[in-house]
Amino acid sequence: MIRGLLLDLGGTVYVGDRLLPGVAESLRRVTAAGVPICYVTNTSRMTRRQLSEMLAQLGLPVSEDVLFTAPRAVHDYLRHHDLHPWLLVHPALEEEFADLPQERPDAVVLGDAGNAFNYAHLNRAFRLLHAGAPLLTVGENRYFQEEDGLSLDVGPFVRALEYAADTRAMILGKPAAEFFRAAAEALGCRPEEVLMIGDDVEADVNGALRAGLQGALVRTGKFRPGDDARIDPSPGGGVYDDLPAVLNARCSAL
Amino acid sequence: MIRGLLLDLGGTVYVGDRLLPGVAESLRRVTAAGVPICYVTNTSRMTRRQLSEMLAQLGLPVSEDVLFTAPRAVHDYLRHHDLHPWLLVHPALEEEFADLPQERPDAVVLGDAGNAFNYAHLNRAFRLLHAGAPLLTVGENRYFQEEDGLSLDVGPFVRALEYAADTRAMILGKPAAEFFRAAAEALGCRPEEVLMIGDDVEADVNGALRAGLQGALVRTGKFRPGDDARIDPSPGGGVYDDLPAVLNARCSAL
Repeated sequence: MIRGLLLDLGGTVYVGDRLLPGVAESLRRVTAAGVPICYVTNTSRMTRRQLSEMLAQLGLPVSEDVLFTAPRAVHDYLRHHDLHPWLLVHPALEEEFADLPQERPDAVVLGDAGNAFNYAHLNRAFRLLHAGAPLLTVGENRYFQEEDGLSLDVGPFVRALEYAADTRAMILGKPAAEFFRAAAEALGCRPEEVLMIGDDVEADVNGALRAGLQGALVRTGKFRPGDDARIDPSPGGGVYDDLPAVLNARCSAL
Repeated sequence: MIRGLLLDLGGTVYVGDRLLPGVAESLRRVTAAGVPICYVTNTSRMTRRQLSEMLAQLGLPVSEDVLFTAPRAVHDYLRHHDLHPWLLVHPALEEEFADLPQERPDAVVLGDAGNAFNYAHLNRAFRLLHAGAPLLTVGENRYFQEEDGLSLDVGPFVRALEYAADTRAMILGKPAAEFFRAAAEALGCRPEEVLMIGDDVEADVNGALRAGLQGALVRTGKFRPGDDARIDPSPGGGVYDDLPAVLNARCSAL
């Protein structure tokens, strides 16, 4: 029985500047049936406010309250532990951390920084890590789908800095189990009552399954043939053509 | 019995723009005793010609023939396998590959590219790897010593691209056993007759020991307390203050 939904955004709900076919109607039916939805994303090129505005423009108005973003989880960790971040993130995201002290940095925050991933910035991060600062990251995603092909996400840069400084990053977004469980709790559900749907077999599906949720992989976005073979073969898993197909097959209430 | 020497360069023979204390005199005594020397380096910011000129300016004239550089090993591999490289290397190194065809690239070559390690270049490399091109690298060194601190070497970028494209790099410089054995052969020695001296515990010392050579770690260059604990505790290994100290202790002929 599914009592709540967690949805990935890029590649699952939208690609580029449009919602995927059938998504808007499917989600209206979910809402009409009284099944709560939260959105869980490692996207770190936008604040929650910017993300909410962008979704509204695509025709999917959602409030910031139901957006679980990895950068926000990093922010809350920094504040809770009284850490001063040095940010290697996308310029658009700096606003999310604007309320935290940033002088004398003692933590390195890695997001999908895009063109800000240059040698000087990576070297600065490395020197802080080598001096003992912890490495916090929004995720370890390998790549994402852009209009003209696949592009490097934050994960490869996490691996680079872990190797350079002989350290391990703390991942505060997907696939961290705490992240999925906090989102399930926000839905008012136990983990096993929640279905997570996404296009990233590791970050979305296997991460959710390891956290005790159900998980469904969609063949949209960054999905490539062969990804389905990498899914954790637990009873809660499955592979479907797209988000509407998951909901038709798995949510009997709709 | 040591019949030949392999020496690392940066951090072992010189730092910045000067030879380390006592090195010039020690190496004159080695040469006078008839013990052959080759230099083995993963340095990939210079061609062999540039390296030879730089050493001459430091007061250590050596011919290109005794310089075993990782970029040259990569070049020879590409030519032997009829591969067209896409180069992510330091601009000064491009000359080393100028005789190879570079249109329709089907191999990615990674060197210590310095500021050329930017997002656009790394993404281009990733897309070629994702399409099936092999990843060839001069080494997997983590960092090197600069005047103002430690800086990222090629290794972290190797790890980044390996992770992104789910592939394994082929390392053609240190610590590859073939690289050390080819250098020993050039000295006219069996591997066990050769002593490798360097400041990188993994690339120089443990790599040489695994290839059947003897190995000595020096406490100059990038050496940091604790590195000595990571040395392979095989009979051929050892830790010394600097290059002259190694020669005094290990080369009875001098």
